[in-house]
Amino acid sequence: MVRAHVSASVNTPHADFLVDLGHPLLNRVVDGFVKVGGVGALHAASQDTYLFLLQEETNKKSLEKTVQRMGKEAVQWGLVAGVYTGMTYGMQEARGVHDWKNALLGGALTGAALSLTEPNPRSDRVVRGAITGGAIATAAEFLRSLT
Amino acid sequence: MVRAHVSASVNTPHADFLVDLGHPLLNRVVDGFVKVGGVGALHAASQDTYLFLLQEETNKKSLEKTVQRMGKEAVQWGLVAGVYTGMTYGMQEARGVHDWKNALLGGALTGAALSLTEPNPRSDRVVRGAITGGAIATAAEFLRSLT
Repeated sequence: MVRAHVSASVNTPHADFLVDLGHPLLNRVVDGFVKVGGVGALHAASQDTYLFLLQEETNKKSLEKTVQRMGKEAVQWGLVAGVYTGMTYGMQEARGVHDWKNALLGGALTGAALSLTEPNPRSDRVVRGAITGGAIATAAEFLRSLT
Repeated sequence: MVRAHVSASVNTPHADFLVDLGHPLLNRVVDGFVKVGGVGALHAASQDTYLFLLQEETNKKSLEKTVQRMGKEAVQWGLVAGVYTGMTYGMQEARGVHDWKNALLGGALTGAALSLTEPNPRSDRVVRGAITGGAIATAAEFLRSLT
């Protein structure tokens, strides 16, 4: 079976930054933090809105809890986005390519960083977070190359 | 402040399919299932290997459990990849564009599908799985557009 591949890729990222801080790495980190943090806040709000629909009563306390959870999830999701974007962008600049190895290492460091935000960070949880983060990022990179 | 944007994108996906089934959608779904399923199996293996390093003894039973978990995670991760790739690719073909709306809907359906594989699927868990799946996919799509 003879197979020939012609594959060309010219990709100028369509990145429209919210704030221009003068450096591409900084722009990406801040942009990832803000955008993905917003998604995290919307996620917490949607989850709690759905719970309110199931419950009988919604009082002031439960609404306050939702706002707290929105803030917490926004920071956590934003942190993940900022660390991951910063790491993969730095590696991309240093190595000259963007492939699953960047994703694996970036995801592992992001997973470790996220584990450290837990109330009681234990070393085994940080390692397991790093393994899971690396695996998720590698899987996402494979999916990205398919679509 | 004057800002000008010139943005060009020519992107031929570098997709090297494992098995050619004659249809791009089918190729993508099978390829996503196999590749990401492999990442899932490696994830289970790495997690358990790390646990073995912490434990004192490793016997036949714990190794058998690891193999079982590898199979289960491979199917789950592969399912996520297959459903997500199929959905987003179908929407991309139908709408002509690939943006965060495709990711949101694809992620929501993937999250719902993954919730149905749980031992006792309850309707509220399926809805919450859909919300979380959509949020994660949207966040990943934002990150993808940054790097």
